[in-house]
Amino acid sequence: MGGDFAPAHEVAGAIEALRLGKNRFEVILVGKQAEIEEHLKRHDTSGLPISIVNADEVITMDDPPTAALKQKKNSSLAVGMQLHKDGKADAFASVGNTGAVLSASTLILGRIKGISRPTIAAFFPSEKGVCLLVDAGTNVDCRAQHLYEFAVMGAMYSKKVFKHENPRVGLLNVGEEKKKGTEAVQEAYALLERSTLNFIGNVEGRDILKGTSEVIVCDGFVGNVILKFGESVPRFLKSKLKQYAAGNVFRTLLIGAARGSLKAALRDMDYEEFGGIPVLGVNGVSLIGHGSSSPKALRNMVLKAVEVAESGLNKYIEEAMATSLRPDVPANVPA
Amino acid sequence: MGGDFAPAHEVAGAIEALRLGKNRFEVILVGKQAEIEEHLKRHDTSGLPISIVNADEVITMDDPPTAALKQKKNSSLAVGMQLHKDGKADAFASVGNTGAVLSASTLILGRIKGISRPTIAAFFPSEKGVCLLVDAGTNVDCRAQHLYEFAVMGAMYSKKVFKHENPRVGLLNVGEEKKKGTEAVQEAYALLERSTLNFIGNVEGRDILKGTSEVIVCDGFVGNVILKFGESVPRFLKSKLKQYAAGNVFRTLLIGAARGSLKAALRDMDYEEFGGIPVLGVNGVSLIGHGSSSPKALRNMVLKAVEVAESGLNKYIEEAMATSLRPDVPANVPA
Repeated sequence: MGGDFAPAHEVAGAIEALRLGKNRFEVILVGKQAEIEEHLKRHDTSGLPISIVNADEVITMDDPPTAALKQKKNSSLAVGMQLHKDGKADAFASVGNTGAVLSASTLILGRIKGISRPTIAAFFPSEKGVCLLVDAGTNVDCRAQHLYEFAVMGAMYSKKVFKHENPRVGLLNVGEEKKKGTEAVQEAYALLERSTLNFIGNVEGRDILKGTSEVIVCDGFVGNVILKFGESVPRFLKSKLKQYAAGNVFRTLLIGAARGSLKAALRDMDYEEFGGIPVLGVNGVSLIGHGSSSPKALRNMVLKAVEVAESGLNKYIEEAMATSLRPDVPANVPA
Repeated sequence: MGGDFAPAHEVAGAIEALRLGKNRFEVILVGKQAEIEEHLKRHDTSGLPISIVNADEVITMDDPPTAALKQKKNSSLAVGMQLHKDGKADAFASVGNTGAVLSASTLILGRIKGISRPTIAAFFPSEKGVCLLVDAGTNVDCRAQHLYEFAVMGAMYSKKVFKHENPRVGLLNVGEEKKKGTEAVQEAYALLERSTLNFIGNVEGRDILKGTSEVIVCDGFVGNVILKFGESVPRFLKSKLKQYAAGNVFRTLLIGAARGSLKAALRDMDYEEFGGIPVLGVNGVSLIGHGSSSPKALRNMVLKAVEVAESGLNKYIEEAMATSLRPDVPANVPA
């Protein structure tokens, strides 16, 4: 119920997902029952395994995440996440208040053993496929251990959900040399070097779109800035092309004709295709999408949630946290 | 002599600059005299106020900056910077080893009174003009005071060189709210709020290209990553358009025809237009360019150096450092 177009886009997206997924899974819509029923009526839902669990409250985009979660115990977010916790659902997805979804994931589902800081990852298009950037905005201050955990979670996601056999992990830095960057980043380098992950060393800002590695690790401050910068590129290009064409009929026609190509080429920069981003490090499957997500984005999000749930990702993360540091590394790196 | 195409591009760029600048200034070429003369012979230099100062050594791209500066006392970098220090030149420009140019600027020219950390700024194109990002990669670990100094230097540059009457200054952060971000960033917010600068509060990654403010302040880690990410966008788009057109004649023709428009629209993302980036906070005018700079980029750099020298930028920075914090702020903020 927390999305900008709830529950219209949620209902439409869920139905599309079920049709595409050939009813291989069920969808539980959590929120104000009457409203949801109203929206369901506008679609043909015959034969679809879809059900409703009522939740009267809504956490809005402006609510302070943790406080709202405590106060609104009957919010669609709290109720839905609890269903997942209780095993009545295998995954949870929301396009509501990001901070609140993150809090609910951590507080209700709990952390995976060995993980001190759950995180969110973002997908970047690259010349060679998709690059997973972890952390995409959760933890602005990170120590080496946190960056190491992000690397493990990102690598497992790439391996188990994206089916990369041996995903390369890069550490985002200001240069290739080992001794570059902040103290935390230099220490993370040392940890990663001693891990069993396919660590390729430092990567730079230009390597994200280049596809130098499948996973790129950074703190949430840098991740958030890069993510938002990247999302602003298509708009910028559109504006520049418009300025360039202004008052020139030939240019306007040409750009108009090529718009489809440009749009298609830029489609990879469109987050809607990826269907939300995963909360990593919690005991469950939790996905977050943009508040303004379209039905298509929500559809992709539901399908992605199914995929992640089926991958068994979390047990691989737990296992990797326990085994990925070589024995010459002290077991208790301060968290 | 330190650039990838030295001294060919340097010589060609200097000559172009003098012609464009109608000999309103002089150019001193510093480096291996015989080599430079050889290159000058390939151009028509009659009537141009151009001279050579010999310097036998070269600091290469792989040299460790500070050590190289000490060892190669007769490098073109050290000799040229000393000419500027001694008042025999009004500005210095180089496309050699960035770290070495930065070290030489700080060590030979010294810092402006009130500035604890010199920095480099980068220019970003925006929907509304140019956005100055400071720090673009010099100081990876920053305290609030450093960020505040970057803001003052950026604002003065925007005002005196770009002639913005009242440049807006934004603090790069992960959200608009005052309490977002790392401790250093939150403290910088408090300092900036009490300054006489036109501080508009926090800005986010998406605001860089949007043109929300003329100056954006961040630490050098974030600045470096964003700068390199931004520079990689045109290449990425080219690659995606190529993938999209592959094997389709109509698409290939269309994209080929529209290429000129796209290139023109992207021109603003091309650093060559800006002619190098300034070292800010040193007692002099020092500009750094990409090692692979074209003659055109070098030409623009020389013209930019003249412009900065004529602006009297540094005395405004010194004055602003002494007066831009309102009296309710303790005078000795720890540096």
